[in-house]
Amino acid sequence: MSRIAVIPGDGIGQEVIAEAQKVLAVALPGYESTEYDLGARLYNRTGEVLPETVLSELDEHDAILLGAIGDPSVPPGVLERGLLLKLRFEFDQYVNLRPSRLYPGASSPLADVKPGDIDFVVVREGTEGLYTGAGGNLHTGSAAEIATEESLNTRYGTERVIRDAFERAKRRRGHLTLVHKTNVLVHAGGLWKRTFDEVAAEYPGITTEYQHVDAAAMFLVNRPHTFDVIVTDNLFGDILTDIAAAVTGGIGLAATGSINPDHTHPSTFEPVHGSAPDIAGQGIADPVAAISSTALLLEHLNRPDAAAAVNAAVERELAGRDSGTKIRTGEVGDRVAADVAGQLS
Amino acid sequence: MSRIAVIPGDGIGQEVIAEAQKVLAVALPGYESTEYDLGARLYNRTGEVLPETVLSELDEHDAILLGAIGDPSVPPGVLERGLLLKLRFEFDQYVNLRPSRLYPGASSPLADVKPGDIDFVVVREGTEGLYTGAGGNLHTGSAAEIATEESLNTRYGTERVIRDAFERAKRRRGHLTLVHKTNVLVHAGGLWKRTFDEVAAEYPGITTEYQHVDAAAMFLVNRPHTFDVIVTDNLFGDILTDIAAAVTGGIGLAATGSINPDHTHPSTFEPVHGSAPDIAGQGIADPVAAISSTALLLEHLNRPDAAAAVNAAVERELAGRDSGTKIRTGEVGDRVAADVAGQLS
Ligand SMILES: CC(C)[C@H](C(=O)O)[C@@H](O)C(=O)O
Ligand SMILES: CC(C)[C@H](C(=O)O)[C@@H](O)C(=O)O
Repeated sequence: MSRIAVIPGDGIGQEVIAEAQKVLAVALPGYESTEYDLGARLYNRTGEVLPETVLSELDEHDAILLGAIGDPSVPPGVLERGLLLKLRFEFDQYVNLRPSRLYPGASSPLADVKPGDIDFVVVREGTEGLYTGAGGNLHTGSAAEIATEESLNTRYGTERVIRDAFERAKRRRGHLTLVHKTNVLVHAGGLWKRTFDEVAAEYPGITTEYQHVDAAAMFLVNRPHTFDVIVTDNLFGDILTDIAAAVTGGIGLAATGSINPDHTHPSTFEPVHGSAPDIAGQGIADPVAAISSTALLLEHLNRPDAAAAVNAAVERELAGRDSGTKIRTGEVGDRVAADVAGQLS
Repeated sequence: MSRIAVIPGDGIGQEVIAEAQKVLAVALPGYESTEYDLGARLYNRTGEVLPETVLSELDEHDAILLGAIGDPSVPPGVLERGLLLKLRFEFDQYVNLRPSRLYPGASSPLADVKPGDIDFVVVREGTEGLYTGAGGNLHTGSAAEIATEESLNTRYGTERVIRDAFERAKRRRGHLTLVHKTNVLVHAGGLWKRTFDEVAAEYPGITTEYQHVDAAAMFLVNRPHTFDVIVTDNLFGDILTDIAAAVTGGIGLAATGSINPDHTHPSTFEPVHGSAPDIAGQGIADPVAAISSTALLLEHLNRPDAAAAVNAAVERELAGRDSGTKIRTGEVGDRVAADVAGQLS
């Protein structure tokens, strides 16, 4: 039986996760869940973000489903670093996966794109680069202050995520784009490029391409249909996936997985959107991204049929909306769950 | 008399710079120019990119007008680092300025934007951050390889570019957005944010805002009209300005200045586009970006009226085009130069 740790989190996280669980109940019948109350409330009550005991308990699960964390009452960065990034590093979630699709019914800010035109995934490295926290400040607050940030990259870390990306490209349209900034970041860029080229030699069936991050950012806006799989470092991936979310209709619909492909620790699945305190508690948050994150979870737990059923149901849900459609959080979950149930029965 | 060093460079660089000089001849009558043959040809002939003697000569000029450099025959990065970045660092060009405007006649990939809707400038730091080359590789080529890149930031360097951005915001619509990634890059982000907040206290008339780089990348796509001036670090600026170019119709039209605001060394002005070897020599390259870069040059040399005349002429040139218009490089330069001459006579 699959054991899922559920972290609803803050704001609309609570509401959308309830809907994701409705869908999971039919897509992964009998799954066991444990709920963890982490986020702004725990932090404001105890000053703790992720107690060691909770981290160990989470580690006993097959996957983590997370709603959203963040609240104006908590200083910026505390929950992000203490929870989200901590999980990525502690659980060795080295594949940060972000599928980008333009769904029928979703509205892109781009002119001249139709549903189906945009369909790619970004494989973002999740445990290295500028995200390790290395660096420091000297003479802080004085006119002489200096601050450094260090990007740490290993052959081990780049190779494993590049291999994962090649495997995904093989299961998709067979085109993989490496994004970096080799003309300026020669040290890390060299490592990434050499590793990429070496692994590419093992995948003669995959067409490959290299783009500088600035060019890739532009191409995501003016020719997003040319991408299939993108592999890139931690920080570039952070930026590119938000552009990807923008061109496919906003982060409201995007889902992400912080994945440990070796299953040595649980992976985390979540909507990309935040806790949206301004609309929390009103039952009007769109749970589609949270529901889509269960499809990524199902894929990771090797349930491709269930994952496909959730994706198909989400697509129908979005296609059935028009610009005037008012979201009722609970109704969306009911509709999608019923659709999934129908498909799997 | 103003002394301008002209580096036509490679590919279409040669062609578009000739047009920029036509315009400069009427906008800055009697300026003296020295042409420098730098780029792929020099490199392929001598292995040199920017000889020290040439660097000293360039330093005797009031400004540098550059076409484009780069050719498939030169290994990637060599000319970029050896010429463009070298000039930025040697000449302390700490303000990398990129205006973004959606011109009438230009076609944005965004739906629902009209000319005039997008009008902002990015003030990108040009001499620090991840562009210093600090970092290295160890055990290169082996399974044990590591690679580092170090972002170096000083109070001195952040404060001067932030002050420049506040001054520009004062001359524009009075809104300044700081972009960084303070929730992850706490060391450099802390320095940038504290410096920004301190300088902001001296500018009560400027409204300020902070955005994480991933959010800013998204907002440039789905609400670009909300920006007036953006100030950010070297690498973030590199990425954001390409998104900005994309939403305003492509890098074909964008111009940039690598500016030393203190005039202790010359500043460089250039189109953002590359050398486009595929269309070089045919007389069909659009010189509008190169011409726009002369407007930035004129502003820097304190000729606001001449700069405004060039901008107005460029705007009319673009407004007069439609999607079927075939560019003849030489005719564009003639038209814009005549328009500028008319305005200034
Ligand atoms: C919240 C933040 C630390 C995080 C990141 O930068 O990775 C977020 O932007 C994301 O993309 O998951
Ligand atoms: C060519 C390259 C080194 C340069 C940069 O990264 O700054 C370019 O992309 C730019 O934006 O001027």
